[in-house]
Amino acid sequence: MTKKFYFGIDLGGTSIKMGVISVEGKLLLEREQPTPKGPYLDVLHVFKRMMHQLLDGSSISNDEIMGVGVGVPALLDVESGYVHEIVNLGWKDVPLQRELENLFNLPCFIDNDANTAALGEMWQGAGRNAKQLICITVGTGIGGGLILNGDIYHGAIGMAGEIGHMCVATDKGRLCNCGQSGCLETEASATAIIHYGKQAILEGKLQHPDPEHLTAKDVIDAARTGNIECNRIIQQVSYYLALALAQAAAILNPEKIIIGGGVSNAGQFFIQPIRHYFEQFALKKIRENVRIVPAELGNKAGMIGAAWLVHNHCRQIGGI
Amino acid sequence: MTKKFYFGIDLGGTSIKMGVISVEGKLLLEREQPTPKGPYLDVLHVFKRMMHQLLDGSSISNDEIMGVGVGVPALLDVESGYVHEIVNLGWKDVPLQRELENLFNLPCFIDNDANTAALGEMWQGAGRNAKQLICITVGTGIGGGLILNGDIYHGAIGMAGEIGHMCVATDKGRLCNCGQSGCLETEASATAIIHYGKQAILEGKLQHPDPEHLTAKDVIDAARTGNIECNRIIQQVSYYLALALAQAAAILNPEKIIIGGGVSNAGQFFIQPIRHYFEQFALKKIRENVRIVPAELGNKAGMIGAAWLVHNHCRQIGGI
Repeated sequence: MTKKFYFGIDLGGTSIKMGVISVEGKLLLEREQPTPKGPYLDVLHVFKRMMHQLLDGSSISNDEIMGVGVGVPALLDVESGYVHEIVNLGWKDVPLQRELENLFNLPCFIDNDANTAALGEMWQGAGRNAKQLICITVGTGIGGGLILNGDIYHGAIGMAGEIGHMCVATDKGRLCNCGQSGCLETEASATAIIHYGKQAILEGKLQHPDPEHLTAKDVIDAARTGNIECNRIIQQVSYYLALALAQAAAILNPEKIIIGGGVSNAGQFFIQPIRHYFEQFALKKIRENVRIVPAELGNKAGMIGAAWLVHNHCRQIGGI
Repeated sequence: MTKKFYFGIDLGGTSIKMGVISVEGKLLLEREQPTPKGPYLDVLHVFKRMMHQLLDGSSISNDEIMGVGVGVPALLDVESGYVHEIVNLGWKDVPLQRELENLFNLPCFIDNDANTAALGEMWQGAGRNAKQLICITVGTGIGGGLILNGDIYHGAIGMAGEIGHMCVATDKGRLCNCGQSGCLETEASATAIIHYGKQAILEGKLQHPDPEHLTAKDVIDAARTGNIECNRIIQQVSYYLALALAQAAAILNPEKIIIGGGVSNAGQFFIQPIRHYFEQFALKKIRENVRIVPAELGNKAGMIGAAWLVHNHCRQIGGI
């Protein structure tokens, strides 16, 4: 009997991750390569080469691959398969889905990388068995992916889940890259933690040997070991995250809220204050029926979620 | 050829509205009766009587009715057809869908009344041709209904769209009926407008012959004719509505936001400041792709949307 597998690709600004995933959602093989910074065809060539490298020497043959899913760090049109723009790769209006299908001669699917990460967590991670999920990734920025009724919700033009640009600091918010002020991203991302940490150094409330290269982890570690100002920063960040999540929960009534990204590695230290403030802001019936949990798959969520795009297609056409 | 029609029922706390709706969504006949305050069987009897009254003397016969949809002012389980509770009618755990089917011997469907109102606007009102809609009803309270991908989104336990309980006044919010503080409902409902209007009277900033019976319309009218404090109240209410809607739009990326309820009768006078503040809070790409519009169907939206529940069922089984 022929076995069936999917390729899941996570196209990042610095590296490409590619995995072979079973129909049960198990990540069997994986590779990582730097992302070439040339025309998009260079990226496609790397995809092809990685595919061969993954299959060579494995027991999996080319014709056991059912399709390819790719998570892309961009706004795109899922229907037409067009990527509008990837600024730091210099891509503009790339018909990626068609190009992938020409390259692989297989059914190919693309989605935004925040969405593929959310799908990965739904399929094999912290969101298993849930159909209504809010996934938030707290890193340099804050991204979001929404799983509604068991599938990604895209919104009118693919912009749904922009939790990072919910305005939470209405009066005192700092200017965001997006042009608005007081976005969650300016108040609760790793970048925000670093900003407030540097301010603490300037005010003499935090010592650091190399203030230029202060990291969010440094601030979190200082808070952990009792620095009062860093603790205040973590409380404030948790407060804003909880506020935005409570507002999102009032709208979406999710079963689970999954928190991922670098900041989530701080685990319970972050999750606990977020839960605390969430209690304060969220409607009783909604908060009683939702769990706030850390992501489980780390940077493998994207590959697995990208493979789910193929998996879902195969289910729909009855192929599996 | 047999024509096909639907019954749409809007079960309210004070009155029952029932209409006969064509497959094209036209409201052809309607009746209104007070809601009996006894056991739920009394309400079912009124339903039956109204059905006969509607059909008697019309050219529509019983066997041309495809089914019955009912909007209910309650939290309910759409899957099982159970109404958990309607406090001011004294209902508790009523298997409404089954009871309706026994009564009418037709396919029957129920949903929350905020949802049926949203469906009505989608089908025949301000949301025509849109698939991603946020509907908000600003009246005594603030209700919401979400249309995502052309159908109502219910969430994990049917609580989705609770826009009225998004926390918007984090620091200075008043206590809400729900037990939280600073909910949109406490700051921007008709009840809130009346509260702040009465405060203005106490402070000598608004004259009124009968402060006890001050209405939201009185405050709006005073603002319209130049009362500075009332104008400030309207600005503040619009600010909070816009903030919550911008946050909801960041999450859902809707095509349209429809504002209904008593307060929306003030039309552009309210819609304009809401649009103004929305610009301030909403992400550029999202606000450029959404329109904020007043509801069009008034209190007929519920009947029409309830009929859509049947319409949708008939489409799915290929009956129309």
